[in-house]
Amino acid sequence: MRHESSTSSATQFAKQPANYVPLSPVSFLARTAAVYPKKTAIIDGRRRFDYAAFYERCRRLASALTKRGIGYGDTVAIMAPNITAMLEAHFAVPAIGAVLNSLNVRLDGAAIAFCLNHGDAKFLITDREFSDTIKVALKQCDNDIDVIDIDDPEYDGGENLGTTTYEELLEEGDPEFAWSGPRDEWDSMSLLYTSGTTGDPKGVLYHHRGAYLNTLGNAMVFGLDLDSVYLWTLPMFHCDGWTFPWAVTAVGGMHVCLRRVDPALIFPLIKQHRVSHMIGAPIVLNMLVNAPEEVKTSFDWTVECATGGASPPSTIISAMEEMGFRITHLYGATEAYGPATVCAYQPGWEEMSSDCRAAKLARQGVRYPVLEDVMVADPVTLEPVPRNAETMGEVLLRGNTVMKGYLKNASATESALGGGWYHTGDLGVWHEDGYVEIKDRSKDIIISGGENISSLEVEETLYRHPRILEAAVVAKSDEKWGETPCAFVTLKDGTNPTEEEIIEFCRANMAHFKCPTEIIFGPLPKTATGKIQKFRLREQANGAEKTQTSK
Amino acid sequence: MRHESSTSSATQFAKQPANYVPLSPVSFLARTAAVYPKKTAIIDGRRRFDYAAFYERCRRLASALTKRGIGYGDTVAIMAPNITAMLEAHFAVPAIGAVLNSLNVRLDGAAIAFCLNHGDAKFLITDREFSDTIKVALKQCDNDIDVIDIDDPEYDGGENLGTTTYEELLEEGDPEFAWSGPRDEWDSMSLLYTSGTTGDPKGVLYHHRGAYLNTLGNAMVFGLDLDSVYLWTLPMFHCDGWTFPWAVTAVGGMHVCLRRVDPALIFPLIKQHRVSHMIGAPIVLNMLVNAPEEVKTSFDWTVECATGGASPPSTIISAMEEMGFRITHLYGATEAYGPATVCAYQPGWEEMSSDCRAAKLARQGVRYPVLEDVMVADPVTLEPVPRNAETMGEVLLRGNTVMKGYLKNASATESALGGGWYHTGDLGVWHEDGYVEIKDRSKDIIISGGENISSLEVEETLYRHPRILEAAVVAKSDEKWGETPCAFVTLKDGTNPTEEEIIEFCRANMAHFKCPTEIIFGPLPKTATGKIQKFRLREQANGAEKTQTSK
Repeated sequence: MRHESSTSSATQFAKQPANYVPLSPVSFLARTAAVYPKKTAIIDGRRRFDYAAFYERCRRLASALTKRGIGYGDTVAIMAPNITAMLEAHFAVPAIGAVLNSLNVRLDGAAIAFCLNHGDAKFLITDREFSDTIKVALKQCDNDIDVIDIDDPEYDGGENLGTTTYEELLEEGDPEFAWSGPRDEWDSMSLLYTSGTTGDPKGVLYHHRGAYLNTLGNAMVFGLDLDSVYLWTLPMFHCDGWTFPWAVTAVGGMHVCLRRVDPALIFPLIKQHRVSHMIGAPIVLNMLVNAPEEVKTSFDWTVECATGGASPPSTIISAMEEMGFRITHLYGATEAYGPATVCAYQPGWEEMSSDCRAAKLARQGVRYPVLEDVMVADPVTLEPVPRNAETMGEVLLRGNTVMKGYLKNASATESALGGGWYHTGDLGVWHEDGYVEIKDRSKDIIISGGENISSLEVEETLYRHPRILEAAVVAKSDEKWGETPCAFVTLKDGTNPTEEEIIEFCRANMAHFKCPTEIIFGPLPKTATGKIQKFRLREQANGAEKTQTSK
Repeated sequence: MRHESSTSSATQFAKQPANYVPLSPVSFLARTAAVYPKKTAIIDGRRRFDYAAFYERCRRLASALTKRGIGYGDTVAIMAPNITAMLEAHFAVPAIGAVLNSLNVRLDGAAIAFCLNHGDAKFLITDREFSDTIKVALKQCDNDIDVIDIDDPEYDGGENLGTTTYEELLEEGDPEFAWSGPRDEWDSMSLLYTSGTTGDPKGVLYHHRGAYLNTLGNAMVFGLDLDSVYLWTLPMFHCDGWTFPWAVTAVGGMHVCLRRVDPALIFPLIKQHRVSHMIGAPIVLNMLVNAPEEVKTSFDWTVECATGGASPPSTIISAMEEMGFRITHLYGATEAYGPATVCAYQPGWEEMSSDCRAAKLARQGVRYPVLEDVMVADPVTLEPVPRNAETMGEVLLRGNTVMKGYLKNASATESALGGGWYHTGDLGVWHEDGYVEIKDRSKDIIISGGENISSLEVEETLYRHPRILEAAVVAKSDEKWGETPCAFVTLKDGTNPTEEEIIEFCRANMAHFKCPTEIIFGPLPKTATGKIQKFRLREQANGAEKTQTSK
């Protein structure tokens, strides 16, 4: 180290091991295990692991992977529900500089094969529940993949595909293994395929730095602490569980596993373990609200419940509040490590009527503290729209919690990140208070007689109808108007309103030009992450002959 | 961006504006001002500023400094108590890439001149209260320094030294100024001179990255949120207020200013503003505990109170708890952005007796979540000591929240950071539960008849004596034993125990070989940051003739 002559040359002070370490979210586990070794880390059915055991198992896994030749930059895929092995993979794989590819368990064999091939997976950890799909996938797989079976005692069915079970693999590993962590905080640690509401899946790459920062952002925004009990209703394969595997661990909270999103499991777990925090897409909240009364349990504390992935209809927010949940609306993207904005509560909102508050909460809100900036702007000129709650623009994000890029897809990376902002593809308005509100995906806007109609706004109205369970609205070609809104709805059990009744309800509750001209009844097609596949509804509305492949 | 062929080459993905921003704690202000513009940010006597105003004033300051020629790498010094201007300087100065040098207001003119000269200060913001000191300092100053006076309506006395007041300076600035932030997160942002219990002050340099991370660490460890009301009992010139100017702002909490640490001011402010969090050295807690009953107020909530800088005697912890404070013990160093470890509460401690809990809390604890590691080890071999609560070693720290180095002092930097760890100079033991406990500064250990005696342990015993207000123990040369403990004590008003009574009390409460052989009564000499100057007591105990210069 040379002599420094002034503060302005102080940037010459070299980074050294005493004062520089690459940021990585896996670092939180060692700390929590050291400070709270006997505190319960994971509840997974009849099994419980304290933090000492959780850390030991992760070290065993990291060590076993290393012994089997997995190392820096290698891809390890996992096909599992929200169980212990899934949590452990989120630490052990990045801890040795490898890249974790959490597979979407709702995909079919061909789609899984695409991921394994595109991501060059060398290793696969898979749960018996998905053995049928994985068998198909492996047949279409170009790589030589080491397959490990999670032989979970909590699940009956399926079959083991390889020769080693997950627990046997852990036995191969050293419980005292000292992992290296990343070489650089910009190293890739995670690969996630977008579910693709349009086109081919893209492989989103996360680095350690971004995951570390979003972890701290989550702890701050969602108010996690040592007493937090986190129920895993959010799929961990979705944006690495929005970085909550690391966030809950960082604060020393408790993970409550959940193999299947089912109100008959969720309500008892909330009650039994005094769940304090959970996250679910609006569709999951809808399931809870509409669950049979006999499975609902009451509890005398407030469960903090974050939602996102789609705008939560105000009826669902109100109904959840009545059941004892407090809703926080988060918004983000796979490309932004999950949540990037929060509809931050303002002083005074508590005193509002439930409907009023729900309307506030339906907005996507303001940037996370760890995100540098968000704006609603013209996607070409990058000129921000006025904050008038009316002018539409694209929602753009910028900061350290935006992905590294798309694997093997330089042009998509350039389109998404070029110009200094990440383009979400979501269209929205900016409110005077700085809150962003999404009106639609770029592709989902309906233009009728020259007027823009937000399909979300029409859906919001439909959701207020007491007999509608789910609703989705798309554009239907129209000779006179160009496009008109066409609504697809699923009704609640035992009810039967007519098309005319529903249209009349809409006309009584919104501008007439926005009302759907046609109502189609039936179940809605969904992507593997539970998003409604509007492109299919658009085909159906416009009489396309293309048949649906798989659900 | 070139085409990527595999995840292992994925480190080639370039950082770009959409996904990489240098970390800086000043970034939190813009966010909080955007989300909570009308929320009170600062209460400073009769003045209140909401977050919109706080942000605007910081932008004005940053702009005015720029107009006056201050820029990247320049040092801006400030001599002020914990008032609005001090908070604003913590944002505006680093926001333009300049380096903030917060001066210790307890230093004399010569020492301040040393700091201004050594740090090449170009600009000085100074409060009337310290005009006498600053006048002396400026006469000894080699640089041409622009001097701005804080003409605080809350303070009478002193005089303005320059031609522009702080509020006039703000008028020069643009309220819409868009600051640049750092060029690199490793850029220096802050320069702090250690108070020097031994030798010359050293100039500790902080970078934006470390301050950002410790900010998030503080929010997490001390449980700050939107409802937090933070009373500024901790000097902001001390480690930049342990990075709390940024932490309280990051969560949107409220800063309550405090010009002077005085129980007669502190208790009413706690009551009036419902203070939720504050920090003070044990000596400050001692002042609160021993304040006249008529200035104490009761309150019906718990005030979270962190302490550090020295080990809090258990009697003080217990007495604070009885008054409604919950004590969190933090430990760190100027070289570690303030707090680096926390004596994290364990489940079960709440049920312990007050004395038992106090003994637990007197330990320095475990690493902050944002610190990579802490250990107690042989300072030469770096071999960790056994976790037996007995073997002494040096406390070593490592991670992103360790300073960049000492300004213009490569050899001291090398001594402090060489070998991969920051050497704190504190001697301690490691407990079985991984908690570090400091027994002494390296220089403060007493070796008597071949046995190590912790001066802290002897002091802890003395503090239990009901009539002792303050105590400090040093080694006195002894022909027979080598060294023996010599105690300096300050008594509470109106009490008069004899030397023999106090020695007898010690013998009744600890091993006899550890008991002081001599008790000297009188006030204790302190450093400018309130630490007891043991080197002076050591001189006095050993009959050195050297006279004390200034207090």
